[in-house]
Amino acid sequence: MLTPPDTDPLTPEDRTLMGPGPSEVHPRVLRVMSAPLVGHLDDSFIEIMDEVQELLRYTFQTENRWTIPVSGTGSAAMEAAFANVVEPGDTVLVPTNGYFGGRMASMAERAGGEVAYVEAPWGEPLDPDAVADAFHQHDPDVFGFVHAETSTGALQPNVPALTDIAHDNDAYVIADTVTSLGGVELRVDEWGIDVAYSGAQKCLSCPPGASPLTLSDRAMEKVLDRDSEVRSWYLDLSLLEGYWGDERSYHHTAPITNVYALREALQLVAEEGLEARWERHREMATHLKEGLETLGLELNPEDEYWLPSLNAVRIPEGIDESALLRDMKEEHNLEVASGLGDLDGEIIRIGCMGYSARTSNVELVLHALEDALRKQGYEP
Amino acid sequence: MLTPPDTDPLTPEDRTLMGPGPSEVHPRVLRVMSAPLVGHLDDSFIEIMDEVQELLRYTFQTENRWTIPVSGTGSAAMEAAFANVVEPGDTVLVPTNGYFGGRMASMAERAGGEVAYVEAPWGEPLDPDAVADAFHQHDPDVFGFVHAETSTGALQPNVPALTDIAHDNDAYVIADTVTSLGGVELRVDEWGIDVAYSGAQKCLSCPPGASPLTLSDRAMEKVLDRDSEVRSWYLDLSLLEGYWGDERSYHHTAPITNVYALREALQLVAEEGLEARWERHREMATHLKEGLETLGLELNPEDEYWLPSLNAVRIPEGIDESALLRDMKEEHNLEVASGLGDLDGEIIRIGCMGYSARTSNVELVLHALEDALRKQGYEP
Repeated sequence: MLTPPDTDPLTPEDRTLMGPGPSEVHPRVLRVMSAPLVGHLDDSFIEIMDEVQELLRYTFQTENRWTIPVSGTGSAAMEAAFANVVEPGDTVLVPTNGYFGGRMASMAERAGGEVAYVEAPWGEPLDPDAVADAFHQHDPDVFGFVHAETSTGALQPNVPALTDIAHDNDAYVIADTVTSLGGVELRVDEWGIDVAYSGAQKCLSCPPGASPLTLSDRAMEKVLDRDSEVRSWYLDLSLLEGYWGDERSYHHTAPITNVYALREALQLVAEEGLEARWERHREMATHLKEGLETLGLELNPEDEYWLPSLNAVRIPEGIDESALLRDMKEEHNLEVASGLGDLDGEIIRIGCMGYSARTSNVELVLHALEDALRKQGYEP
Repeated sequence: MLTPPDTDPLTPEDRTLMGPGPSEVHPRVLRVMSAPLVGHLDDSFIEIMDEVQELLRYTFQTENRWTIPVSGTGSAAMEAAFANVVEPGDTVLVPTNGYFGGRMASMAERAGGEVAYVEAPWGEPLDPDAVADAFHQHDPDVFGFVHAETSTGALQPNVPALTDIAHDNDAYVIADTVTSLGGVELRVDEWGIDVAYSGAQKCLSCPPGASPLTLSDRAMEKVLDRDSEVRSWYLDLSLLEGYWGDERSYHHTAPITNVYALREALQLVAEEGLEARWERHREMATHLKEGLETLGLELNPEDEYWLPSLNAVRIPEGIDESALLRDMKEEHNLEVASGLGDLDGEIIRIGCMGYSARTSNVELVLHALEDALRKQGYEP
């Protein structure tokens, strides 16, 4: 027999989470995670499933029947979107303006799609004219865009300008709303988004593991009319339809506790009210932004595409970014994050999401950041 | 604005879980699920990841470097095994003796494999002679079998007899250990299993959402030498290698809380000791089996392939199975399950897994079952 390792009791660090996710989890959500399990086919769980679907529809602002939590973290919901909607031979248009457009490309290719790009620099939104040109050039079947780019802190303004172009060209629109759902204005139906996916651990402040996905009837018809099977059994929505739809047949075991948690997190959204919640995010992020400006720092995005839930702050000349982040973690037990891709070394990323979007957290960030900057000789 | 639904506070039923999973969760595991999150790239989480890997190796009885929890429920770990190991054009041999062989076939086909079958009736194990014949006939590259069939309560005895055949034919062996890991004897290295996957919510008594997977170096070499990309980005082990291996680079956000829970559940396995745990499952299930025999009931499998963690009990002539299950749930708040596939209507399935494998639960099952049978006029 191989012998067991010698492990200590689990004592995770108690950090203040102000990075790009996970955000801090609301105590009520943590509490329901300790609830005993019921079976994934139990009547009482099916009722919980229904409630989660209702609450998700409200949070997405959609009446889409196909609105479910996918049994995995945000990237699983993302792949569920691409793997189901994209059929072999489809042309898929994706953006180049951040990390997650690249991930869309990889998922679309694995689904058998041909990828085309609409260009914009990292940290900037897509220009509708560039999207129209790309449609003219590539005639895509599916168009993916990122509503709130976690890697750059840029918000895509005027979403209907993009979805109109897609629909005029009979294409389907997939929106990455990982860092916007429940934090910044998002109206799936009104804005003409066909498919949207998100994560639990951003503005919903819920542990990751069950991830929001919604599809319009039109998009779901494409999925159900596919000529070839979806390349993932686990994420095949035509099978998941049996479990989350009227039939309630067994497909796979749902992550029961994560569904409990998501329900509680969404109930908190409903209690606060979506518009009040968007406003709270904007207020707290404004407080942060003003404090950063007082420190002489500036955000990377222009005001018109500033993303309140994820603030990309330009690092001043001569500052050692990794020492900055290490100091904030070691001295203040605070998590913020470095940049990614084209903005690596140029920005730090400060989240302002869900339960983390509160005054005490914002003030700790400003205090810790000032402290860490002064250590490197920076004078605000 | 669409208005929020009117939902009540979450109050899941408190059932005694003696079905095919989920089993009841140990209070210590429930407790760690309320721990605050740390970031998925935090040093302290990386330490937890290492510990989970060590504890999983012990539980699988393997020294495989590639031993990780997959970020999804058991079927995600299953698909990770098939989607990575099976390349387009590979022949994959799967069994016909239960529900999960069928799922293997579907996953193998979606990965681009050609499926061949080795036959055995539902509820019976594979005969090594039949496996040898199937190898002779189909020359498969990959051979999947189910160590503990949750749908039929049959244990595959003498696993090395099967893996020897596969290795003599240069094939890779994938074992479904969903209902055996941590409950019945399983020795991945000693038995020559190349890839094994499992679920958290069976004999580990952990909420589902992070699921054990282990691959030998030989199997991982096949994965890393693939000509074509894995068809799922989320489950691509060549990318996950970056996160769970030495590099610790970002791939996707791990289901942090589920990883905490799995660590605690595995630590409970280590504290009890694997052999003592196997013995406890056997003892508790023997107690159940003897009680069933006293009631005049019999198990579907022969003794030599009886699966202590999942007991398939034949329904006596004239008994209405759904009324039986309903009575046990309504009168005793107890979950056991019906049969599936070829055994639907012929058996009920009583789990005896993890924290549920204890005297009080076994006695409740016997009492509730007798009660429900007598209501239908059955006299033991």
